[in-house]
Amino acid sequence: MEAAPPGSSRPTEPGPCLSGQRGADHAVSASLQSAAGTEPGRHPLAVAAVLPAGGCGERMGVPTPKQFCPILERPLISYTLQALERVCWIKDIVVAVTGENMEVMKSIIQKYQHKRISLVEAGVTRHRSIFNGLKALAEDQINSKLSKPEVVIIHDAVRPFVKEDVLLKVVTAAKEHGCSDYDLEFGTECLQLALKYCCTKVKLVEGSPDLWKVTYKRDLYAAESIIKERISQEICVVMDTKEDNKHIGHLLEEVLKSELNHVKVTSEALCHAGRHLQQIILDQCYNFVCVNVMTSDFQETQKLLSMLEESNLCILYPVVVVSVHFLDFKLVPPSQKMENLMKIREFAKEVKERNILLYGLLISYPQDDQKLQESLRQGAIIIASLIKERNSGLIGQLLIA
Amino acid sequence: MEAAPPGSSRPTEPGPCLSGQRGADHAVSASLQSAAGTEPGRHPLAVAAVLPAGGCGERMGVPTPKQFCPILERPLISYTLQALERVCWIKDIVVAVTGENMEVMKSIIQKYQHKRISLVEAGVTRHRSIFNGLKALAEDQINSKLSKPEVVIIHDAVRPFVKEDVLLKVVTAAKEHGCSDYDLEFGTECLQLALKYCCTKVKLVEGSPDLWKVTYKRDLYAAESIIKERISQEICVVMDTKEDNKHIGHLLEEVLKSELNHVKVTSEALCHAGRHLQQIILDQCYNFVCVNVMTSDFQETQKLLSMLEESNLCILYPVVVVSVHFLDFKLVPPSQKMENLMKIREFAKEVKERNILLYGLLISYPQDDQKLQESLRQGAIIIASLIKERNSGLIGQLLIA
Repeated sequence: MEAAPPGSSRPTEPGPCLSGQRGADHAVSASLQSAAGTEPGRHPLAVAAVLPAGGCGERMGVPTPKQFCPILERPLISYTLQALERVCWIKDIVVAVTGENMEVMKSIIQKYQHKRISLVEAGVTRHRSIFNGLKALAEDQINSKLSKPEVVIIHDAVRPFVKEDVLLKVVTAAKEHGCSDYDLEFGTECLQLALKYCCTKVKLVEGSPDLWKVTYKRDLYAAESIIKERISQEICVVMDTKEDNKHIGHLLEEVLKSELNHVKVTSEALCHAGRHLQQIILDQCYNFVCVNVMTSDFQETQKLLSMLEESNLCILYPVVVVSVHFLDFKLVPPSQKMENLMKIREFAKEVKERNILLYGLLISYPQDDQKLQESLRQGAIIIASLIKERNSGLIGQLLIA
Repeated sequence: MEAAPPGSSRPTEPGPCLSGQRGADHAVSASLQSAAGTEPGRHPLAVAAVLPAGGCGERMGVPTPKQFCPILERPLISYTLQALERVCWIKDIVVAVTGENMEVMKSIIQKYQHKRISLVEAGVTRHRSIFNGLKALAEDQINSKLSKPEVVIIHDAVRPFVKEDVLLKVVTAAKEHGCSDYDLEFGTECLQLALKYCCTKVKLVEGSPDLWKVTYKRDLYAAESIIKERISQEICVVMDTKEDNKHIGHLLEEVLKSELNHVKVTSEALCHAGRHLQQIILDQCYNFVCVNVMTSDFQETQKLLSMLEESNLCILYPVVVVSVHFLDFKLVPPSQKMENLMKIREFAKEVKERNILLYGLLISYPQDDQKLQESLRQGAIIIASLIKERNSGLIGQLLIA
């Protein structure tokens, strides 16, 4: 990642912060904004980003250029755009793509609702692509929606895990030194170019291991596992009511908490027009365990699915919903309930269209307390597996614990 | 990876080739042996390997030293040992581990039945560990089972994907130049030491991307995906007879072939005392789809499981067995068959102990040909998912296509 001053300085209005971060991250985010000069009332530093994305990825060993390779069915470049978009003080993001990939790129922007993105045609080399991006930012075209920035971050389209603090370091260094470069390993080419052709000082900024570049096929595997891990850090157990302390949903919640270390397990009720649940969805929890106890077999699950479908949660990541049903296998053999529960296959097919992965889970509910604990533990193992793998080939299956 | 001549030369007998490679690889293997001088009748070059494995893996961000981190429940170092063991012209493999990990290492060698391994205590630095390994090989101890080698390959314990051709290049270069080093990126330290302290020429040998080192947690993810992919390249459909061309097993085989590109799908019969099937097992196929059509629900699956349990196949990798059952859902509702098929949960628990992952799959068998194709296609998707993920949390589940 490098930063270069493309032309004269022009102050811009601070844009709305689209940061997806929450909770403890807010403080960090606020202090970063302040350092970048984007807090209201201060003269903001105009920052833009250029992403050269014209490569053909010959080292990857796959026909698709690596920036378009899918991870959880979404192209890699969309993750990189998401990482930059989250930084509210980056006003414009210019992506340089080849003519033949222009339409693909437009459809990616539309499908994943990326904002603040402009496209330019890539050059024959990485540096020509960067030049085209900088030119678009520097030009004073009447129809251009781009603001002329003071600092431009140049970021590889195949480094999806860049963080705000590293970007801020680069921008700060660029402001002080005129031009900066991420580090020796990744930036030498551009560093040398800067030294050779520019009358400007150069500063290396220390990066972090997160900045790694997707180069080989094994890096795609690693990226997929990292993303899966990131969106599996929180599970919300949804039930009809939270008032009843002895609700089976609470028992399941407790077992999930003790079985799954490092995962935050919360619970929410579907009642009160789901106000709290709405917040959980807004806060980007991607895993739901829905406990069904009412007469109709899927009443709770259907309510939850409607809420998810109405939200924008599923646009970026597949959301896992495990529809849990309890049954005393001694009183009612599971086969008797099966016919009804098999309806989950139809629901699953339907919601898959909207990026929801729905699975069924029938948990044995014996009278014996110790046996109940054991079947809840089994259920927790199955839930953990489903959430970890996000396997779309197994949607609509009714698993038994 | 580097190679160094530890002492005076002493010819050793060519050992038996334990190569697990098969098919097309045999020819390559034979020519490599010839180049290394290990073919019968020729004076063989005595080669040993030293693995420094005393690191604590602080960059990994996990408490376990990275060489002991599990991949598919087996420690990383065991994969590296397997890669070296496969090369039949490496006579001895000396592993340097810290005193506190000595017992762990011994149990790994025993559990995964590694051969030709000796252990020495690691030093405080990587170079002291290498020195200890070389000393053990150079010493003329009466009780030592080690042969004094002409060339020693020094290989990181955390590079599990090294291939025979790269090892051969290193050995050949060592023979010609006295000492060789893998490449600039990975070998500089040792290269410099060799230049500084040894009266020997140095040669860089070109490696391959497979030689990459497991350094960060993301590399463990990548390694796991690569290993999963490697052992998912072949599926054997097992049925009671291969004679009947219209056998439902053959139909499933055809659909698997058309649905799963890049996977070799074969079929074998359980009859004739399973002679061909025995060969498939010996040839290291790790995925079986067992078609049950006889009166007893699990007759075929049980036969196959017995054969697998008697073999050594499951020692190194978990073997997936999908027990497939067909049913005309219109004539017999799945719930009716369910009670019996649920027995699979008990079988699965039992064989998990021996590293076999058993899943059940009930495929709808409608009269209509087109519908049958559709349910077979569904079945193939589920089979592919199970084989790809090797999810031990879902064993014993009865999935429905």
